[in-house]
Amino acid sequence: MTRTTVESAKKTVVIGFDQPFCVIGERINPTGRKKLAAELEAGNFSTVEKDALEQVECGANVLDVNAGVVYNSNPNPNETEPPLMTRMIELVQGLVDVPLCIDSSVPAALEAGLAAASGRPLLNSVTGEEERLELVLPLVKKFNVPVVAISNDDTGISEDPDVRFEVARKIVQRAADFGIPAHDIVVDPLVMPIGAMATAGQQVFALVRRLRDELKVNTTCGASNISFGLPNRHGINAAFLPMAITAGMTSAIMNPVRPQEMEAIRAANLLMNNDPHGAAWIKANKPPVAEGEVEAGARGRREGRRRRSA
Amino acid sequence: MTRTTVESAKKTVVIGFDQPFCVIGERINPTGRKKLAAELEAGNFSTVEKDALEQVECGANVLDVNAGVVYNSNPNPNETEPPLMTRMIELVQGLVDVPLCIDSSVPAALEAGLAAASGRPLLNSVTGEEERLELVLPLVKKFNVPVVAISNDDTGISEDPDVRFEVARKIVQRAADFGIPAHDIVVDPLVMPIGAMATAGQQVFALVRRLRDELKVNTTCGASNISFGLPNRHGINAAFLPMAITAGMTSAIMNPVRPQEMEAIRAANLLMNNDPHGAAWIKANKPPVAEGEVEAGARGRREGRRRRSA
Repeated sequence: MTRTTVESAKKTVVIGFDQPFCVIGERINPTGRKKLAAELEAGNFSTVEKDALEQVECGANVLDVNAGVVYNSNPNPNETEPPLMTRMIELVQGLVDVPLCIDSSVPAALEAGLAAASGRPLLNSVTGEEERLELVLPLVKKFNVPVVAISNDDTGISEDPDVRFEVARKIVQRAADFGIPAHDIVVDPLVMPIGAMATAGQQVFALVRRLRDELKVNTTCGASNISFGLPNRHGINAAFLPMAITAGMTSAIMNPVRPQEMEAIRAANLLMNNDPHGAAWIKANKPPVAEGEVEAGARGRREGRRRRSA
Repeated sequence: MTRTTVESAKKTVVIGFDQPFCVIGERINPTGRKKLAAELEAGNFSTVEKDALEQVECGANVLDVNAGVVYNSNPNPNETEPPLMTRMIELVQGLVDVPLCIDSSVPAALEAGLAAASGRPLLNSVTGEEERLELVLPLVKKFNVPVVAISNDDTGISEDPDVRFEVARKIVQRAADFGIPAHDIVVDPLVMPIGAMATAGQQVFALVRRLRDELKVNTTCGASNISFGLPNRHGINAAFLPMAITAGMTSAIMNPVRPQEMEAIRAANLLMNNDPHGAAWIKANKPPVAEGEVEAGARGRREGRRRRSA
């Protein structure tokens, strides 16, 4: 059974087919958040602190930390991002005890993050691009950490899921050349917006099944991409996540502050038999006990439509 | 491709893997509804009328009609149910133009319903019980209608999904002996409450996949059984339905008046590429257009987390 282990100083989170779905909180990321970017450049970490606490409170199992801000005062991220990554990681792990996901396209920032992080963080990410493979896989090996592998390569992102599968296979093979086992590769098969590509959902479900069955790897995705450009995105995301979980998806990089998506994940954990005795579901949905009323328990009977019409 | 065709006087609904999920409204059923049962015995059909109109308004594609009331004045359903079924069907199809699902455990009521219904109704149901097979399959053949096949037999409901699969196979084979094609059998693999059986979800997903791949049949279920006895049942049902659809489930007998479940089904249709151009999703979720604002369209771009962190 494939198990990817990530750790903070004291806490271990296992990503796996027989584990509750792993929610990787995406909020600590200045990309596309102008206010946060300006704060970070000014040395103000109040939003990072709030995002760390709130995401863990809402149920995130792992926190992604991305320091990808381009300073107005210095446009070279190779200089600015590594020290910012170090500072953000020290700050976040001082506040919350969950494993971190070190997220950068700047190899020096990945290395700074790896040096700063306690335990066994998840590295985000390697791709099938040659340069990226050569820069990131040695770090993965040196620090003995798991890594997110995004299924694009030097030719870009293929619309053909078979090509994306082959990119994933190539990354797994190249990692093996470095002595990195498949259970430390978490493949992101790339989720396209369903509004732009009508087969995007079916592609992901089929890819996740193949990645699980053929490559024996865990999977992740930027879940909210699926609903880009459409109305009521939370409604789409909240169906997509249980569907992806049914296909075998084991984690997602997402916003855990959204209750609709988190409820869908808790229900999917229950329905996949990854919530022993329904304890997490019942805890999250405990009805207020009315006076004189006996609280509803977890034990159902076989009843319902069939019983009624028998 | 498996297609089960049901019809009202003027409307055709196709159940199939490449079709939007078929919602069979379950409300017109006095079993467990004492007030409705009393009304029906008193000749008052106002609730039936309301349930018919409301369910279609909420998006039901087919309406189940069950006349299974035990009169205080006459406890023999073989006498009371057939004329009541006839009357209810005439009433419902006078109000709404959707195909009907004739639901009874009394063969004479099934036959009365078949005689009264316009178009091509769905018969609900046959089981693997010998007596039931011998009574119902001739009706299915005579009236050339599709039938719901529930996977229990004379030994009861097996907890072993392999046994339930074999019961379904037996029904399909017996139907074939009568000249009834597999595409006119809609198998109900029987959904157990997840609170009583932790593997109930996984059982259904695996069974639905086998029924689809090996027997090439459409499937249905009493969807809300899955959440029996647990808090926040709608939250469980709303994850279960997209998960079952991912596994290949093509219809459910359910309450279409519940918005959370119906939204989940619309999202699943979109994600399975059974909502051309996202038209149904967009129609159901059209945001109010603010002054001077351009309405969001269906076309997304490839963007989101990956684009941001690239």
